[in-house]
Amino acid sequence: MDLSVPAAPLIEIPPRSGTAFIIERGATLTIVDPLGEQVADLVVFGAEDPREHLSNGRTFDYEATIALTTGNRLWSNRSRPLLTIVRDDSGTHDFLLTPCSRDTWRLCYGGDHDDVPGCFGNLATALGPFGIEPDAIPTAFNVFMNVAVGPDGRLSVRPPRSQPGAVFAVRAEERLIVGLTACSAALSCNGRFKPIHYRVDARA
Amino acid sequence: MDLSVPAAPLIEIPPRSGTAFIIERGATLTIVDPLGEQVADLVVFGAEDPREHLSNGRTFDYEATIALTTGNRLWSNRSRPLLTIVRDDSGTHDFLLTPCSRDTWRLCYGGDHDDVPGCFGNLATALGPFGIEPDAIPTAFNVFMNVAVGPDGRLSVRPPRSQPGAVFAVRAEERLIVGLTACSAALSCNGRFKPIHYRVDARA
Repeated sequence: MDLSVPAAPLIEIPPRSGTAFIIERGATLTIVDPLGEQVADLVVFGAEDPREHLSNGRTFDYEATIALTTGNRLWSNRSRPLLTIVRDDSGTHDFLLTPCSRDTWRLCYGGDHDDVPGCFGNLATALGPFGIEPDAIPTAFNVFMNVAVGPDGRLSVRPPRSQPGAVFAVRAEERLIVGLTACSAALSCNGRFKPIHYRVDARA
Repeated sequence: MDLSVPAAPLIEIPPRSGTAFIIERGATLTIVDPLGEQVADLVVFGAEDPREHLSNGRTFDYEATIALTTGNRLWSNRSRPLLTIVRDDSGTHDFLLTPCSRDTWRLCYGGDHDDVPGCFGNLATALGPFGIEPDAIPTAFNVFMNVAVGPDGRLSVRPPRSQPGAVFAVRAEERLIVGLTACSAALSCNGRFKPIHYRVDARA
């Protein structure tokens, strides 16, 4: 490591909120769960043409697993790798379910949930200035989210396995627009709303 | 059944090709595997606004299973049900993987596959006249496709379970643009390229 280039400072995403930013090709995005058992929904789009975006289907095609971890790549709808996972402390993430939303509250929680926009609403707000419409937000890579697939195909959301300080880091294979949240759904984060920390380090 | 309204005739999708068409709300789309062990990739878009499309993530959210069958609904990125499964003879389909494509040949088959456009190319050609760009084709619902998820999350493509004459039918919950193929990938259809038949019956 070049000690003349210290790691960038961590930035906090407050509980039940989200952000968006550009990262350069070769940069590393480090996501930290400071308190443990929290989820961060991650989506990325091509910075030059945001019609290129993360695709769970293409990723499942080319990585041949739904259990993505260090060394796996996350692919775009144009069959290009956008991210490579370079560190994974928890080993459990989800790429099946979409960001929580007002529709999630209505359809999954019986409508008795708080009136908050959810990760989907927070991503839509954060990505809007980059020209990305809500309709264009794909299924997210839900960092630290723990979704079990039963032998019969049934899905069940379980508490995240991330310990306090757990790190998940990806290298950008292209210049990307990133959307990232601190999850808003009680079910995903074991009933407590917590922040997420992240930092971006340029190519060493 | 109203006997004054006979079922529509079956239309053939030749091997390794695809088609697109509009169906009205309430209509039933019946897909038949005439010879058995063939796959049909199905995508749908809102006819009034094609930015609304089938979403595997939203479907997994609201149906809480990846093993979708009779009675399950297939949802859109706007959290609306677009299709309801009303008949399912084979019971095994896939909503994880994307339509086969030139990229699939390159990345999964070592580049030694025939130079054909695959289901993705066939869908792109068929959907183009409806104003749907290739980038906007989501992960398809792959009718009759048999993809096993191992306990470790590994995915393996297996021969379809559909017997000759197997039927899969869906009811349209909105007016929809439909893209439908007879699969081009040897791996998906057990090494033989076969046609798919379909018909559309208006609401009884």
